[in-house]
Amino acid sequence: MSTAPIEFYFDFSSPYGYMAAQKIDALAARHGRTVDWKPILLGVIFRATGGMPLPDVPLKGPYSKRDFARSARFHGITDFRMPSVFPIPSQAPSRIVLWAKRTGPAAGATVAKALFRAYFVGDRDISSPDIAAEVAGAAGFDAVAARAAVDDPAMKDALRQSVEAALAAGVFGSPFVVVDGEPFWGLDRFDQIERWVSTGGF
Amino acid sequence: MSTAPIEFYFDFSSPYGYMAAQKIDALAARHGRTVDWKPILLGVIFRATGGMPLPDVPLKGPYSKRDFARSARFHGITDFRMPSVFPIPSQAPSRIVLWAKRTGPAAGATVAKALFRAYFVGDRDISSPDIAAEVAGAAGFDAVAARAAVDDPAMKDALRQSVEAALAAGVFGSPFVVVDGEPFWGLDRFDQIERWVSTGGF
Repeated sequence: MSTAPIEFYFDFSSPYGYMAAQKIDALAARHGRTVDWKPILLGVIFRATGGMPLPDVPLKGPYSKRDFARSARFHGITDFRMPSVFPIPSQAPSRIVLWAKRTGPAAGATVAKALFRAYFVGDRDISSPDIAAEVAGAAGFDAVAARAAVDDPAMKDALRQSVEAALAAGVFGSPFVVVDGEPFWGLDRFDQIERWVSTGGF
Repeated sequence: MSTAPIEFYFDFSSPYGYMAAQKIDALAARHGRTVDWKPILLGVIFRATGGMPLPDVPLKGPYSKRDFARSARFHGITDFRMPSVFPIPSQAPSRIVLWAKRTGPAAGATVAKALFRAYFVGDRDISSPDIAAEVAGAAGFDAVAARAAVDDPAMKDALRQSVEAALAAGVFGSPFVVVDGEPFWGLDRFDQIERWVSTGGF
């Protein structure tokens, strides 16, 4: 069986991404696997694919808001609440994740989960570099260095390259999971992911 | 508990609709409920919502083809195969379902399942009125009357009104299920539907 990390692509402005973030590490751990947390920018990806933010889609928009809350209840994620500002640009928190990952994948996961919680539980606008850095600081990271990372040209480049690589890998939504080359889109594929990881395919 | 029929909206050209059609009657029966089979035309609905057929969407198109086959395997639907012509206009089979429903909901379900199987198992192009009527005949219906129903202005009107009513009810995709006013989009909400029907909501 493969021991390669499970690739977990997410946008910080994605409610289903937040819910998936509550589940992916435990799913991987049940099968002795780790997770590579990969922030993406749906805004950039949608420009390539013609997609648009769910709330803007006729009929699907109102349905989605209802489904966000219902899916959270269904999955036992009791602390989810829709942020008052939604969607948001997610460059700042994404760059902080890439910066944290320089010290290892676990650091990336830790700061990503803290940022997700700040937005979808605490209703904090993490698109603000100051707020995102403050959240990183509260999660045990160097807040000043995190704030500097948001404006660091190397981090900007790293994020741009990350998103381009995601697009090249066929990633078009959030959450998006790749297990040993097999792509899965959506929180509602986690049942298939679990079976795939435990059996090596079906 | 409610005993109202579960509303099952589907387009004959929808692979996930076919898979859902294999499951919806059994799901309802487990909870003492019946199903109202409601054919829709995604082409008309997409003109209102800006949606487009999955195969045409960049990145999502190739992913979807892979996901159709994988989801069929995951759900134990072993006879699914992508038709050689896809997607197809679904006016002819939809009008035959509305015609059959005049003798009762069970007749509508029976002919709908036969038509779905002809397309997604038998690779027959049911967009052809002659083929759709022949399939209805093989399922025990009057093939000549079924063929006439396709061109019957009353059936054309009935289908138009059905699709308008679906749009007004917020239906934007296939399959789409409404349980006691609660809307669920997609085969991947069948787990939520099952819980909703058994508990009356969550």
